[in-house]
Amino acid sequence: MDIRQLPTPALILDQRRLRTNVRAMTERARTLGVNLRPHCKTAKSAAVAKLAIEGNFGGITVSTLREAEYFLDHGIRDILYGVGIAPNKLDLAASIAGKGADLKIVTDSVTMAQAIAAHGAPHKVLIEVDCGDARGGITPDSPELLEIARTLAAAPNVVVMGVMTHAGQSYDGRNPEAMARIAEQERASAVRAAERVRALGLECPIVSVGSTPTATFARDLSGATEMRPGVYVFYDLYQTGIGVCRIENIALSVLATVIAHRPKDNVMLIDAGALALSKDRSTEKLGRNGDCGFGLVCDPVTLAPIPGLKVAAVSQEHGRVTSEEPLPFGRLPVGSPLRILPNHACITAAGYDAYQVVDGSTEVVDRWGRCNGW
Amino acid sequence: MDIRQLPTPALILDQRRLRTNVRAMTERARTLGVNLRPHCKTAKSAAVAKLAIEGNFGGITVSTLREAEYFLDHGIRDILYGVGIAPNKLDLAASIAGKGADLKIVTDSVTMAQAIAAHGAPHKVLIEVDCGDARGGITPDSPELLEIARTLAAAPNVVVMGVMTHAGQSYDGRNPEAMARIAEQERASAVRAAERVRALGLECPIVSVGSTPTATFARDLSGATEMRPGVYVFYDLYQTGIGVCRIENIALSVLATVIAHRPKDNVMLIDAGALALSKDRSTEKLGRNGDCGFGLVCDPVTLAPIPGLKVAAVSQEHGRVTSEEPLPFGRLPVGSPLRILPNHACITAAGYDAYQVVDGSTEVVDRWGRCNGW
Repeated sequence: MDIRQLPTPALILDQRRLRTNVRAMTERARTLGVNLRPHCKTAKSAAVAKLAIEGNFGGITVSTLREAEYFLDHGIRDILYGVGIAPNKLDLAASIAGKGADLKIVTDSVTMAQAIAAHGAPHKVLIEVDCGDARGGITPDSPELLEIARTLAAAPNVVVMGVMTHAGQSYDGRNPEAMARIAEQERASAVRAAERVRALGLECPIVSVGSTPTATFARDLSGATEMRPGVYVFYDLYQTGIGVCRIENIALSVLATVIAHRPKDNVMLIDAGALALSKDRSTEKLGRNGDCGFGLVCDPVTLAPIPGLKVAAVSQEHGRVTSEEPLPFGRLPVGSPLRILPNHACITAAGYDAYQVVDGSTEVVDRWGRCNGW
Repeated sequence: MDIRQLPTPALILDQRRLRTNVRAMTERARTLGVNLRPHCKTAKSAAVAKLAIEGNFGGITVSTLREAEYFLDHGIRDILYGVGIAPNKLDLAASIAGKGADLKIVTDSVTMAQAIAAHGAPHKVLIEVDCGDARGGITPDSPELLEIARTLAAAPNVVVMGVMTHAGQSYDGRNPEAMARIAEQERASAVRAAERVRALGLECPIVSVGSTPTATFARDLSGATEMRPGVYVFYDLYQTGIGVCRIENIALSVLATVIAHRPKDNVMLIDAGALALSKDRSTEKLGRNGDCGFGLVCDPVTLAPIPGLKVAAVSQEHGRVTSEEPLPFGRLPVGSPLRILPNHACITAAGYDAYQVVDGSTEVVDRWGRCNGW
């Protein structure tokens, strides 16, 4: 079937682009001498995860315990749950480990380390380190780092597996030089934390870093053992805007249909709105020239952007396409298919339960499920 | 079970508030002398729809054909699909009607009217009128209105059911007076369009208007036959901010757990981020005093806002809670449950496959499914 026969909106994944992206990142990891532990929160798909771990050691990162269960059901065992664990999730984490997952959980708090110790069930734990993002994590030189390590190490049910950090601030980088500097902060913070943990006499086998920008521009990851980029499997307009990929790398698009013309306003409406595209406005940060609205409008066959056309506004099921030039109403009558490139692939994909897979053309070759929710 | 035993994040629906909201809107419709055709795109839930049509004529509005199928499966027949139909959706629309739905579709285009006529299958159609929102619809005095009506009326497979309009601009209203004026524009536009269609000798049994703000503040709906508010079932911070409801009317909240403290930054992290809360920032438009960030933080038991606390930033699975005053870290240790009121209920709810239903307390009394996707 051709994508143009699909009900719209539909989420289209070009596996040719996906394969290019995952091969390139696998090669990056090899060059940098670290394991690649892809963050599967972007695709939440077993089929994508299997491509992403091909040629790698086989471990993945997830953002929810539901993902952990799902990927285990699909045969992936080595799973890092990368969001700080809460007490109410320990039973489920233990149950997933009990079903055969080599599950690692994460904490940055002494209180939580005590709760993990008190929980009694076996847990493998990484300590989360803040390398400048100021989201999760403790700074590598903080006294809490050692207190958490000691608390965990003293518990017979716990194995301290190492440290992890995420340079979320790399998304504010705008050039390779800046992102290479942030990658070095990320590496140095994780390595410093690992050294301090090891100085307690503990093993610290995993030193985990990573974001797509830092994985792309890191010059050296000495001391790190693995990296965890995520969005590189699909890329998106934000990653393009900050120079991490080219627009031709973006593997994900939303197929939409023109449902109305408003020639007086130089607007056409499509059937992809806030739920189909998400309300993510990441590219707003990139200023007037980089701002892609709620997505760029592309030819449905070539996936080449139609110059100037973007989705300027959305309501729940309507997208409002405009341009500074007159819109090509004649060439795009009501009923015309279009493809929209997303601001932020992770968030757009979350509106769908499956990918319609193509392979460099418009022929649907497969349908890959996703694991949404919690 | 108490909600505090649920895995988090979870979507909590207080049916006591919901029942108050649906009763009040049913009473509004009765006072105004019109049918209430609730827009079920907000809840996408058969259980909610059944409460909303209680005491009303039984018809509903939907925003996707998947919703139409779902509600038909749950015994609701009279369904208005309120988004402009596209040629690629006609087969599905006909098939849903063939399964017993009294389905009405909508168009605002001569081309599309021709496609509906040419489709051959039986279709009931409303013409979409623009009353100032400049989204879908043609203006009531436009020549296209008559051309669409004539095109449809000439087709043996089509019944022209009437006209519909939606005053989306009511969301820009800030006081009852302004919203009453917009409600009058909405009413007058629909009635004017209906008169012109009737002047062609056509029946025009349905004259459909509505949004939650205009339904709330309309003074007179003479000539309209029905109204289609949607978000009133749950309300949200945006509706509160523009004065359409009180904060005590908001029936929907996201249950989250504190997963980290950053006392130096006066920040705590919760496990509800961009997917659990959505990236909707509707309240940003309300200015500094009305801006609720990505949601207001509430006591998990009373659902009363904790003064000053809001979710200031989100990443995929992290929410960053801050306040201008020092956060109550001691009172909210890691592991504490919180409830977050959403900016925009329709968009937040879309991240979940079900509601955990409570009835004025924290006891989970039911689980109601949702119909997501397309």
